[in-house]
Amino acid sequence: MSQQQGKFIVIEGLEGAGKSSAIALVNNMIKQHIGRAPVCTREPGGTPLAEKIRDLVKIADETDPLCDEAECLLIYAARAQLIANVIKPALTAGQWVLGDRHNLSSLAYQGGGRGLMPLVKAVSDACLRGFKPDLTLYLDIDPTLGLSRAASRGKLDRIEQQAIDFFERARRTYLQLAHDDDSIVVIDASQSMEQVHDDIRLQLQHRLPTLMGEF
Amino acid sequence: MSQQQGKFIVIEGLEGAGKSSAIALVNNMIKQHIGRAPVCTREPGGTPLAEKIRDLVKIADETDPLCDEAECLLIYAARAQLIANVIKPALTAGQWVLGDRHNLSSLAYQGGGRGLMPLVKAVSDACLRGFKPDLTLYLDIDPTLGLSRAASRGKLDRIEQQAIDFFERARRTYLQLAHDDDSIVVIDASQSMEQVHDDIRLQLQHRLPTLMGEF
Repeated sequence: MSQQQGKFIVIEGLEGAGKSSAIALVNNMIKQHIGRAPVCTREPGGTPLAEKIRDLVKIADETDPLCDEAECLLIYAARAQLIANVIKPALTAGQWVLGDRHNLSSLAYQGGGRGLMPLVKAVSDACLRGFKPDLTLYLDIDPTLGLSRAASRGKLDRIEQQAIDFFERARRTYLQLAHDDDSIVVIDASQSMEQVHDDIRLQLQHRLPTLMGEF
Repeated sequence: MSQQQGKFIVIEGLEGAGKSSAIALVNNMIKQHIGRAPVCTREPGGTPLAEKIRDLVKIADETDPLCDEAECLLIYAARAQLIANVIKPALTAGQWVLGDRHNLSSLAYQGGGRGLMPLVKAVSDACLRGFKPDLTLYLDIDPTLGLSRAASRGKLDRIEQQAIDFFERARRTYLQLAHDDDSIVVIDASQSMEQVHDDIRLQLQHRLPTLMGEF
């Protein structure tokens, strides 16, 4: 009998939406349901080379400012590397993968936020060739609230320092894409952490059996 | 009267085709014709950030081997950065630009050599949006001859260590693209350096007046 393919679950959201605590919760629920911790990834990054690319994207260089197209292409280079060397090998080996961001972030930030949707879609289609998460939990939050939460954690990076309308365009894109795709679940992340976690638990209790093939 | 836009001339070819000496020659001819040295670029690279990207492409990491898609996307990220921060500002300021490789290399190496033409074309079209050199000199050489010349110069990098059929596919793509585009001139680089340089001089003497607007 061939090994069953693992599943790929992704947590998405703007800065300060509560991704980290949601990832810890989902990590635990996956462990309980399948008896094994998932492989955890973050994007951009997640392989030695992709982490070097992450540094190029996150750290501003005033002598050679990163142009929007290069930012987009670097993020997809890191993603291609992560998919080839981490995500696909894990899924093929039957392991589950839990991602801190994936392709939806590029569609929202670079496509919506930067206004580069034609480039993002062209690269996404040609590079991913239909590969996508089995389930995405999108933690939706007003960017003003999210950024005030993120700022209270410490210094903001190059992306987090964008103007508020950048994040508003990203949020609109997230919501539009979630509306069009049943594999993306919107969680209201403006609620208390307890309520957000209750909503995530409810969604996973409803969806994990299907993902595990227990119809 | 508005400043006349500069011109973008690119030297292309497989390893060992004689690009470096051709670039020195063309550099001198441009200087003589327009009275000013061109801005010289190399790809991948040519800006501080693009040079960091070049290192990621050129240096093999056995623990995290660079996948073909990531290689392609990194090279385009470096190119986008070079165009935005070096090539376009120079051309706009009326300076000429002389490039050691440009987009044709990606079409030949990643498109033809790696078999990634759909990804390369999608990224190229979406990223460059019609931007291309005014003139490309493609130094054509049999890869067996070229690589033996390159090997005599020292250690081969990650790309130069590909199998011979990779370079044969790249060469076929170069020739096909040159056949379809009048702005790409094929120079027979298997000849003696004197003969190659005579051919380059002849081509430039014929084409520089048109590029300079002296019809």
